[in-house]
Amino acid sequence: MKIHVLLSPLNADELYFSDKTTVVIDVLRATSTAIVALANGAREVIPVDKMEFATRVSGGQNLLGGERNSKKIEGFDLGNSPFEYTEDVVKDKAIIQYTTNGSKAVVRAKFSKNLFIASFLNVDAVVEKLASLGEDVQILCAGSGGMFSLEDTVCAGLIINTLSGKVKETEFSDSARASVILYEKFSDDIAGMLKNSEHGKELLEAGFEQDLDFIARINSYSIVPFYNHDSDSLKIEKENQTEAKE
Amino acid sequence: MKIHVLLSPLNADELYFSDKTTVVIDVLRATSTAIVALANGAREVIPVDKMEFATRVSGGQNLLGGERNSKKIEGFDLGNSPFEYTEDVVKDKAIIQYTTNGSKAVVRAKFSKNLFIASFLNVDAVVEKLASLGEDVQILCAGSGGMFSLEDTVCAGLIINTLSGKVKETEFSDSARASVILYEKFSDDIAGMLKNSEHGKELLEAGFEQDLDFIARINSYSIVPFYNHDSDSLKIEKENQTEAKE
Repeated sequence: MKIHVLLSPLNADELYFSDKTTVVIDVLRATSTAIVALANGAREVIPVDKMEFATRVSGGQNLLGGERNSKKIEGFDLGNSPFEYTEDVVKDKAIIQYTTNGSKAVVRAKFSKNLFIASFLNVDAVVEKLASLGEDVQILCAGSGGMFSLEDTVCAGLIINTLSGKVKETEFSDSARASVILYEKFSDDIAGMLKNSEHGKELLEAGFEQDLDFIARINSYSIVPFYNHDSDSLKIEKENQTEAKE
Repeated sequence: MKIHVLLSPLNADELYFSDKTTVVIDVLRATSTAIVALANGAREVIPVDKMEFATRVSGGQNLLGGERNSKKIEGFDLGNSPFEYTEDVVKDKAIIQYTTNGSKAVVRAKFSKNLFIASFLNVDAVVEKLASLGEDVQILCAGSGGMFSLEDTVCAGLIINTLSGKVKETEFSDSARASVILYEKFSDDIAGMLKNSEHGKELLEAGFEQDLDFIARINSYSIVPFYNHDSDSLKIEKENQTEAKE
């Protein structure tokens, strides 16, 4: 199994992903929040890459959620904090998600044969899925404005580390090796790493410390949101829908 | 002094670089080879990003050098090995350089106010230059086909590590921090790191082991090639031209 990490969505164009198995990571906070929304009963999360599109499809049973530069967008129902996506808010709703980096990264990778989202919250579940598929893996870090994000790469390193313990033969690209080295450097204190990352510092300053502590809790959920090509949205298998561990 | 690393040329567009101080790194082998060519008396190295352009401007006192996928290109005078760029070959010549990643990265960054090239061969000289300028620094890793390269990032980490010992206040972006961590991981054996990198393995297989050993020799040269905006080429200050330490 070949494992490769794209450290920014700009590293490759949309067609790169066709026929590939891809995991998109945006630890702070798009994929973490989408995982929580789906675990709390949202019917689907619809990632969009253009603000205009997000506002056009909203209304009715849909909730519009996301951020621009860490701030809730005027006219949106929800921001990008996982604490807003409680069961009473999201149950059976479709969430349209527009964020600066994460939702765009998912859309960029949508031609993937298998497309999953991950964060620290669901590492083991995603690893189990990847191991059972046995296909080569592309991990796409959402990054920040086209640039590298430490937290996404450290999370990629944890996924690779765990996956290589479950799969017999793995082959790492340079970026996969680098991700593992960075994970090992910060493995003792994921919350501290988040708080010292560029994006984490911005969130701290904006008052989101509890988001960072929550998002640092590895394997809080055992769901694997996947991109459904019929609905162009992220869903989970129904039987898993309420499997949150806490 | 803020220090930031772009892990791929695709991380930003050409205009990003305007008014910035930028160092381009393509350890294997474009910037290493350009440093050797200039140290051995080449008048200038003209980096180009399009093959057609390279062949059009060649002829006369010019030499056409470079590679595509590590191989010398048909019709070119020289490949991309530093050992081809001896004094008797390059003295007073203009070298037109076309390579898969490195020359394109230099062209992408050409709007920089100050643009230098670096590799392991000239770390201290580049650091001294950056410290004397005192400006924020962008380090652009040429990478490989738009993706991350371990060797370029480790070299960036060494530059940052050395620079932060010379400059009082430094501020690292996530990618700058990651580069330093990766450098520290491999600092004991740069040649070994090169030989185990994706691109290094390809070069080993193609018979270029001595290139890797040579390119791993930190600070073999004390020149700082800079991009001259009048001539659109890389040059060095004349008094340094023959200052190779070995």
